[in-house]
Amino acid sequence: MQKDDAIKKLGNGEIKLYEIDKLFSSTDATNIRREHIKRIKGISLENISKYSLNMEKASQKNIENSIGTVQIPLGVTGPLKISGKHANGEFHIPIATSEGALVASVNRGCSVISKSGGVNTVIIADKMTRAPVIQTNSIQESLKLKNWIENNFSRLKEVAESTTSHGKLIKIDPILIAGNYVYPRFNYSAGDSMGMNMVTIATEKVLELLEKETDADVVSLSANVCVDKKPAYMNIIEGRGKSLMADVLIPKEIVKDKLKTTAKSIEHVNTVKNLIGSAISGSMGFNAHYANIIGGLFLATGQDIAHVVEGSLGITTAENRDGDLYFSVNIPDLPIATVGGGTSLETARESLEILGVYGSGKVEKFGEIVIATVLAGELSLMAALSAGHLAKAHKTHGRTNSQ
Amino acid sequence: MQKDDAIKKLGNGEIKLYEIDKLFSSTDATNIRREHIKRIKGISLENISKYSLNMEKASQKNIENSIGTVQIPLGVTGPLKISGKHANGEFHIPIATSEGALVASVNRGCSVISKSGGVNTVIIADKMTRAPVIQTNSIQESLKLKNWIENNFSRLKEVAESTTSHGKLIKIDPILIAGNYVYPRFNYSAGDSMGMNMVTIATEKVLELLEKETDADVVSLSANVCVDKKPAYMNIIEGRGKSLMADVLIPKEIVKDKLKTTAKSIEHVNTVKNLIGSAISGSMGFNAHYANIIGGLFLATGQDIAHVVEGSLGITTAENRDGDLYFSVNIPDLPIATVGGGTSLETARESLEILGVYGSGKVEKFGEIVIATVLAGELSLMAALSAGHLAKAHKTHGRTNSQ
Amino acid sequence: MQKDDAIKKLGNGEIKLYEIDKLFSSTDATNIRREHIKRIKGISLENISKYSLNMEKASQKNIENSIGTVQIPLGVTGPLKISGKHANGEFHIPIATSEGALVASVNRGCSVISKSGGVNTVIIADKMTRAPVIQTNSIQESLKLKNWIENNFSRLKEVAESTTSHGKLIKIDPILIAGNYVYPRFNYSAGDSMGMNMVTIATEKVLELLEKETDADVVSLSANVCVDKKPAYMNIIEGRGKSLMADVLIPKEIVKDKLKTTAKSIEHVNTVKNLIGSAISGSMGFNAHYANIIGGLFLATGQDIAHVVEGSLGITTAENRDGDLYFSVNIPDLPIATVGGGTSLETARESLEILGVYGSGKVEKFGEIVIATVLAGELSLMAALSAGHLAKAHKTHGRTNSQ
Amino acid sequence: MQKDDAIKKLGNGEIKLYEIDKLFSSTDATNIRREHIKRIKGISLENISKYSLNMEKASQKNIENSIGTVQIPLGVTGPLKISGKHANGEFHIPIATSEGALVASVNRGCSVISKSGGVNTVIIADKMTRAPVIQTNSIQESLKLKNWIENNFSRLKEVAESTTSHGKLIKIDPILIAGNYVYPRFNYSAGDSMGMNMVTIATEKVLELLEKETDADVVSLSANVCVDKKPAYMNIIEGRGKSLMADVLIPKEIVKDKLKTTAKSIEHVNTVKNLIGSAISGSMGFNAHYANIIGGLFLATGQDIAHVVEGSLGITTAENRDGDLYFSVNIPDLPIATVGGGTSLETARESLEILGVYGSGKVEKFGEIVIATVLAGELSLMAALSAGHLAKAHKTHGRTNSQ
Repeated sequence: MQKDDAIKKLGNGEIKLYEIDKLFSSTDATNIRREHIKRIKGISLENISKYSLNMEKASQKNIENSIGTVQIPLGVTGPLKISGKHANGEFHIPIATSEGALVASVNRGCSVISKSGGVNTVIIADKMTRAPVIQTNSIQESLKLKNWIENNFSRLKEVAESTTSHGKLIKIDPILIAGNYVYPRFNYSAGDSMGMNMVTIATEKVLELLEKETDADVVSLSANVCVDKKPAYMNIIEGRGKSLMADVLIPKEIVKDKLKTTAKSIEHVNTVKNLIGSAISGSMGFNAHYANIIGGLFLATGQDIAHVVEGSLGITTAENRDGDLYFSVNIPDLPIATVGGGTSLETARESLEILGVYGSGKVEKFGEIVIATVLAGELSLMAALSAGHLAKAHKTHGRTNSQ
Repeated sequence: MQKDDAIKKLGNGEIKLYEIDKLFSSTDATNIRREHIKRIKGISLENISKYSLNMEKASQKNIENSIGTVQIPLGVTGPLKISGKHANGEFHIPIATSEGALVASVNRGCSVISKSGGVNTVIIADKMTRAPVIQTNSIQESLKLKNWIENNFSRLKEVAESTTSHGKLIKIDPILIAGNYVYPRFNYSAGDSMGMNMVTIATEKVLELLEKETDADVVSLSANVCVDKKPAYMNIIEGRGKSLMADVLIPKEIVKDKLKTTAKSIEHVNTVKNLIGSAISGSMGFNAHYANIIGGLFLATGQDIAHVVEGSLGITTAENRDGDLYFSVNIPDLPIATVGGGTSLETARESLEILGVYGSGKVEKFGEIVIATVLAGELSLMAALSAGHLAKAHKTHGRTNSQ
Repeated sequence: MQKDDAIKKLGNGEIKLYEIDKLFSSTDATNIRREHIKRIKGISLENISKYSLNMEKASQKNIENSIGTVQIPLGVTGPLKISGKHANGEFHIPIATSEGALVASVNRGCSVISKSGGVNTVIIADKMTRAPVIQTNSIQESLKLKNWIENNFSRLKEVAESTTSHGKLIKIDPILIAGNYVYPRFNYSAGDSMGMNMVTIATEKVLELLEKETDADVVSLSANVCVDKKPAYMNIIEGRGKSLMADVLIPKEIVKDKLKTTAKSIEHVNTVKNLIGSAISGSMGFNAHYANIIGGLFLATGQDIAHVVEGSLGITTAENRDGDLYFSVNIPDLPIATVGGGTSLETARESLEILGVYGSGKVEKFGEIVIATVLAGELSLMAALSAGHLAKAHKTHGRTNSQ
Repeated sequence: MQKDDAIKKLGNGEIKLYEIDKLFSSTDATNIRREHIKRIKGISLENISKYSLNMEKASQKNIENSIGTVQIPLGVTGPLKISGKHANGEFHIPIATSEGALVASVNRGCSVISKSGGVNTVIIADKMTRAPVIQTNSIQESLKLKNWIENNFSRLKEVAESTTSHGKLIKIDPILIAGNYVYPRFNYSAGDSMGMNMVTIATEKVLELLEKETDADVVSLSANVCVDKKPAYMNIIEGRGKSLMADVLIPKEIVKDKLKTTAKSIEHVNTVKNLIGSAISGSMGFNAHYANIIGGLFLATGQDIAHVVEGSLGITTAENRDGDLYFSVNIPDLPIATVGGGTSLETARESLEILGVYGSGKVEKFGEIVIATVLAGELSLMAALSAGHLAKAHKTHGRTNSQ
């Protein structure tokens, strides 16, 4: 078929958008669909058409019904001095955003931290989870099923791990019960990939065995105890993805000269805003704006943007130590990857390369960079609020990106 | 200065990244910074450099320390038939994502819905909020301050609205108190812009007056009762941004033929997963994956990506009506814009134009399209889980983007 | 019938427990039932039989199938100096409990507070709520119903208030919607009674009108948006029952001499325990042990013991003011009464009389005494923890009643 | 000293309330204090003075500054047929309350259940917890401390268990970290006592060792991660006290004839009230009124009344099985005891004896009775709401104790 014919057939409904891929290369299909949209809407889509991504490859893994790409401005911050187990040295961190002031604010944080000797980072845990719901007939059968799962763990582990070269089934815990429904939470080590696909396939295999050997009936492979892409205390308490922490000690003089405030004042704002303010409004996020920094980093590096939801959880602490400022950020639940998903898209890959974390064996390093950057952004905003600078920052940058 | 000189000076630390903008055009500054990063990292950044965005303009409003752009694949779904107050007719909806299967899944939802006569949409409320924390000396003074704010509302409203041409101060409510700290929540109608900048400036002006006329002391202009970019029951109960709902009635035959399941089964999965599963894991999101669809739409249309956090909240209902499926999605808290922020970036603008919602007077229409699309994506996944199709979908598309 | 016959018939199942009331006085029925239980269990129930309550009266309003009473030890604390709007002066506060150390701990708090000049108290709000769920066909009808309720408020108010001599319908707000279900929250001023009965009857009357004039269908008169006897952010944010606050300033010397600690240390423990500890464990109660004190007061004064659940919510603040300790407690949701329910039981009435709050027009005074006592108990435990005294207290009193 | 002298000295402030115990027997001290209160208030306290409890004994363990007792009416419900592992047979259940209709409502539930063959009960878990907060200098030290605790578990277990004859340290998990603060959650099997005292003493001993061997500093022995007497997702997810479930299958005819409703209708009300209603109001309790039943049982049997807070959490499920009703209640967190605390008070002991659960080795049986009774009360109210009977019930019994 000629491209023009295809566009006409799209126009009169003879072909559907996704059927174009069967007839043309992905690049051509992209153009045909975009041309179709342009015609029926009577608009031009010049910028969406200008991309350098390999659309053949992207169409295999990342996108369906492609019509081009969107471009998001990419800024760079740093250098940020990090002292972690996996990330050590000075880093330039790319952040993609359309919210003015965000990059500048993170950059200010990087500068202050580096002057203070650097930020420390730690990875506490690494697990990706999937939790199906299984139906029984009664609480007694539910309890029996829970016991069966616990007693057969090593067999189930073997079955699960037969489906993957890198994932390990760490534990099935907790196993929650509500009447005749059982919700076992499968925890896997995910390694360098984000892991949702792996854990889904591995868990499915386990459930096949479970259904064969017991009377139980799997109602849904995923049952919101996972908890994927929704904010949940389950993930705060149990951890999910990478559980990360970072801290820094900012000397008194730097707090005064660079942040234009005091450790005492930042501790105070942290207490009344991040702790009390969050508590009385029923918030799960006891921080100022983790989501801003994580959003910018996720966009730059090809992460799943819906996981920003999980990264928004966590608690900031601030302590006046005789004028010096001790400051920490804590994120219990951050799914990230350095392979798979969007990480192989060309621009994402380049962002990961700026950080030196593209590919296998790099995800811990990446995690430490992420949490270090979150600290930089959080510190900067808390200091600005403390110094009453927030409003002025808006006037300069035209838009607030704050908490 | 020559570009090469600038790159060298960046290399030896004589100039800082952000100082380049004072010496060069934004386009040149972008190239200089990128070149610097390339050299110190020893990498090539070919794709980041290939963009069509007007970086001069973006550097005014959207980004600092720019080094290029990231490209995110853009797919198109639809047509989706929408029957709203503001959005009426058939829409093609652009979704930017790197998560395979997401566009295909939403597209399936669109197809089923359109065959069923379309999705209904409603906007319940529109408000943007900012909540400072004000310190007094005691609970009695806190109560006095609360009363003062309530008694002076019309004056405060006048002052607030003097700073903006389009925002209206609707109410200051609730005014929460914790000991000697008072947290008044300012609610503004935001109109077509997302509104955070407007409400910050307007609230700041009110606080100047308040500090002049009372003894109270503003500790922080923002105090997490707003609640911006964190998941919070405050926003679920009070609403924030746009509060949106959509529903659809899918005839029995279409549920069977197209979704390969039954209304009864979808109702069942909704109860055990979205309701019970979320309840027992302490989740704020009683839905399967709102964040996925909102993330894809936000990326495509230049919204603030950190607001996906707020859009992840909400509840899905499903009801078997004699074999037909009644299905609804409800989002109480979704900040969106059709002007300002990232919406003017070229590709975002084109995405908004595909929807016919770029510019002023279009945000209600946009909101209705967003919630309609969320329903399409939610329905598709719930049906897939119900039909046990989730796992197979992964194998085809290489990666899950589920719940 | 003779008593012995009745006991025999109970024994062989010819009569049911509740049928005895139709044949005998309540006092005799109480004895007959108790005798029956004694025989079938082969035990003696000597103490349950020894009561002075008027069982004839109690059987009308407070109990069915009575077999006697339980006795709970009653202690007295104080004097506690209170400076409130309604409660002013020195109070002795009766606390019923079986948990050793509780009365002693509250008493210590009273002593320290009185020495410091007294505790200040404030009532912020007073409302009792009931929220039914109403079914419509669609989101559009749900929105229409919401509008109908808002537009007919004055009529609905009239209807509601026709059922009660003292309750006023303040507002119907929020009106939450989930698809085709509408949850209007009716807020009434309750005055001296706890109010649940009044608001139920008044709301029922409104719903009769609503069902007559609209197509809507009331599925349940109560739908957990009330939220009665469950912990809920709705009540924290909107308030329920009485919303109460108390604060105190303890001079440095008293903190040191009587509490054996420092203001700085108490502020510190408050931050790491009541704020951070509660935040990271997903707790709704940002306090140490409000429930202990409220439980003891509720038992003493005939309140509904299940409402201790709501009183457990709230936030404690502590501030080091140059060595002096500023300390506040805040309870947004406390249903209480000085008339009706258990308040007329003889011992409860005597406890209320000790406080000078039995009967009409006294509930504000009672509320202020309650919150003042909560502060005394909270301060005492926080100081003990701060001083490392908790463990020693246990050893002395044999049992902890802590947080 | 003569009694009259003591009363005078109390009156003029020469002696304090608690000092009376050093001079007189507890019974006399009780009378002296009560007489003092009578005089200064000018009231009579006749009923408070009439008790049969052994005040000498109570003053050792349960109360300080005693002035008598309060009497709470005690009703009896049942027989309730229970099929549990520990509780088997027919039970009469004493409930103490002043809220009319509660006993009648539970009794109706018992009757329906027994006709249907009985309620099944299960205990899933048993643990009592205590969580201190320990301060370090940094996240790295926090992580080191976490590792130290994990690596020394068997030693710590030995130390903890050296302080108690019946408690076992099961695990120290989770160990949450927020910056330089570490919150290890100690889990003990509690057995027949409620356990708070035991776990406090055992944990204190462990912390002594920890402080000796590490640089860490215990800031507070209890740090709200326990989570005692506050509602918390930690306890919902991890379990605390006894974790209990009960279910029942009510045949279609009994639902119709006795409950005057249908299984379909009860399932419906459960979904829109207990699930959706709770979800949208940010409630932790996905049930109608567990707190009512637990409150009544706790009062009757001498439990710690503040623990009603924890018992208010949990989820009810209802399922229409071809006209039969499957109904379950699930409580993850219920601290209870059959020895210690208030259980030895004479009337509490008699209530426990009615149930056959006074003393050692009986707590599992007691737990099963509690959860069975909760089901009876929950079923009764849900059925009443479903049948529209709630309002009528109020009119009869004068006061609601609903939802």
